[in-house]
Amino acid sequence: MERLTGFRDFYPEPVPANEPWSCDLRQHIFGCWRRTARNYGFREYDGPPLEPLELYTNKSGAEIVAQLFNFVDKGDRAVSLRPEMTPTVARMVATSERAFKKPIKWFSLPQLFRYEKPQKGRLREHFQLNCDIFGEADVSADAEIVALLIDVLRSLGLTAEDFVVRLSSRQAWQRFFISRGGNPEQAYEFFQIVDKIEREKPEVSTQKLAALGIALTEVQGFINSSVPEPELQSVLDNLEARGLKAFVKVDYGVIRGLAYYTGVVFEAFDTKGELRAIAGGGRYDQLIHQVSEGKVNLPALGFGMGDVVLAELLKARQLVPSFASTIDTVVLIEDESLRLQSLGLVQQLRDADSPADYTFTPAKSDRQFKKALELGAARTVRLERLSDGTIQVRIKNLKTREEAIRPYDGSPAWFAGG
Amino acid sequence: MERLTGFRDFYPEPVPANEPWSCDLRQHIFGCWRRTARNYGFREYDGPPLEPLELYTNKSGAEIVAQLFNFVDKGDRAVSLRPEMTPTVARMVATSERAFKKPIKWFSLPQLFRYEKPQKGRLREHFQLNCDIFGEADVSADAEIVALLIDVLRSLGLTAEDFVVRLSSRQAWQRFFISRGGNPEQAYEFFQIVDKIEREKPEVSTQKLAALGIALTEVQGFINSSVPEPELQSVLDNLEARGLKAFVKVDYGVIRGLAYYTGVVFEAFDTKGELRAIAGGGRYDQLIHQVSEGKVNLPALGFGMGDVVLAELLKARQLVPSFASTIDTVVLIEDESLRLQSLGLVQQLRDADSPADYTFTPAKSDRQFKKALELGAARTVRLERLSDGTIQVRIKNLKTREEAIRPYDGSPAWFAGG
Repeated sequence: MERLTGFRDFYPEPVPANEPWSCDLRQHIFGCWRRTARNYGFREYDGPPLEPLELYTNKSGAEIVAQLFNFVDKGDRAVSLRPEMTPTVARMVATSERAFKKPIKWFSLPQLFRYEKPQKGRLREHFQLNCDIFGEADVSADAEIVALLIDVLRSLGLTAEDFVVRLSSRQAWQRFFISRGGNPEQAYEFFQIVDKIEREKPEVSTQKLAALGIALTEVQGFINSSVPEPELQSVLDNLEARGLKAFVKVDYGVIRGLAYYTGVVFEAFDTKGELRAIAGGGRYDQLIHQVSEGKVNLPALGFGMGDVVLAELLKARQLVPSFASTIDTVVLIEDESLRLQSLGLVQQLRDADSPADYTFTPAKSDRQFKKALELGAARTVRLERLSDGTIQVRIKNLKTREEAIRPYDGSPAWFAGG
Repeated sequence: MERLTGFRDFYPEPVPANEPWSCDLRQHIFGCWRRTARNYGFREYDGPPLEPLELYTNKSGAEIVAQLFNFVDKGDRAVSLRPEMTPTVARMVATSERAFKKPIKWFSLPQLFRYEKPQKGRLREHFQLNCDIFGEADVSADAEIVALLIDVLRSLGLTAEDFVVRLSSRQAWQRFFISRGGNPEQAYEFFQIVDKIEREKPEVSTQKLAALGIALTEVQGFINSSVPEPELQSVLDNLEARGLKAFVKVDYGVIRGLAYYTGVVFEAFDTKGELRAIAGGGRYDQLIHQVSEGKVNLPALGFGMGDVVLAELLKARQLVPSFASTIDTVVLIEDESLRLQSLGLVQQLRDADSPADYTFTPAKSDRQFKKALELGAARTVRLERLSDGTIQVRIKNLKTREEAIRPYDGSPAWFAGG
């Protein structure tokens, strides 16, 4: 019985040779994601992994809909495993925004799904950090969300030598398109062509752009200009004040595929250009209005960062910490007549939030000690019965090999001194 | 656009009036689950939320299969959202057990799914703590897993007045059944009848038992005896040594519905008997052998604890902590000419893992201060420009109302003193 194609098992370290995904690394990434988002005052939320199909079919653009992991459930409802979090959070905000002070700053760590042929860096599921701000139209919020993206990557040990955030602007592209005589109703079609320029043959882009009355050379000229439009200059100044300017550059080659973006957009890439995008996002001021069918109007912006490319980057930059040591204390049970008292000792350690382990059944002294080393324990502890019947506890520091002996009266007093 | 029936949104606190599920409470529960499992030396793993349908159809007994959230995917594969974690972890262990030292002690926090009519305490999804031990046949491992279950609930503030673990044994029931002339091949059928006795009309149970040659009064007599069979006495002695005996009692009315249990089984209930089971589990020594089609033979045992009943119990016992304060510092920007420097200050705090917030756009002093109070901040900090052009930082402790003033040179030196 094998798992489904494109899905992952997450084993504890040390992971089996043919299983590259470690739950310890995943939880390390999740921990950095959460800590940084909380440092920025973002609050955690979550929604269902399964949503009505209609939540996606009109909102996200053709690209994502074709790849949905959708099906008809036993109650004949068209449903889909969530391919992205933005429609869910837009639904949640549209439903209940009045309960929350603005601006709303929320994050989530959803598992997302898509049905497409799995390939390197793209499986059928991944986890994604989603951070969004609702209720702030000012570009200072765009700077905040980009700063958060940068600091999330910094919290994992990555530096400006490892990644760069490419900043662009749908508004800038909109102004470009209109100033060249483009039809405003065809703007999204135009954005889609620009989005694919890097991957498409020049002839194809030329032909598609011609249908909109735009020359490829003009588009390429704008991409190569890299002159910050006003909204991007404001973001740059803001990031500079935070000491984060080295992590960003203006790059109009970024425009983002999804239909709902309306303002500043951005993507983070590894500087060596070896991997897919690490993260991406932007402003989507109309989506809440759409999702709420006109009832709620809140400006919004955010980003998503997946775990797959990120884990590849951390491995490539040797930024994966060691997860070998998970136990503070191994309690050695060398005198079986003291097994029950030793269990009491184990309980005292665990009650004090000090991870502790022991062997379930009688085992030779050296086997128990070997287990302590394998678990990366900081110390061993064992009870010993003296000839006068009293019991003492022997504590051995496995780093310094120093030993301490203390009287044991059954209470946790013996380790009060650490 | 509404979410699907039986699924939950998890809002940050304070949750909207009609939305009872809080992400803060969920993460509080997850935090206690993880911390306690780690204190016991358990390592975290995870698997796919979607598995091949066959993983469940033969292994889990009829009860669970009828409620599966299964479908046929776009590649014509029969698949199911996972209804429980045990088949997944059994698959993972069966595949890769050689990479891990025994006993294997693992935990996971999966979201699980079932397709049935939602009712109080039972939705179409829930989260579950799963803890399992593989590779230890001795009953000392049964005691360890029950102790972990107890300590998980204790870590949330629950006491022996709030919950009890009812201990039973499939072996004891097996011995009972055989000693009354039962046919060993009908043992699981017999267990199923016993499992339903509390919910079924006596006539129905009497009739079903008669078909197996057993009298209902005999079964009731055994349930009421509550005499610990040897394996349960061993568990009780072990738990007593840990100071946890007050949390358990022998109760042969517990037998568990799933087919795969083979030894000690148990369920945790609120002592007032107001809610469904909080947790349940037991020993399943044959499952790895079955799942691996005979290739691997490892004794196994574990338990699952859902978040829905648990959250209800915590609310009823007023054990839900306050989640109001999420920010240490609010940086007040009263002099807009100092906005960029203030952003630098915000960055210093966040870089030091001290959650900090500020207002994105110019706002009146009292509005900014009110925001600090709403966020539950411990202090406000603001930059002030003196007449000689130098800048100072004013730190206000919002509890004591004490103020401190320090020089500000743009470096984080100002808060080095705390």
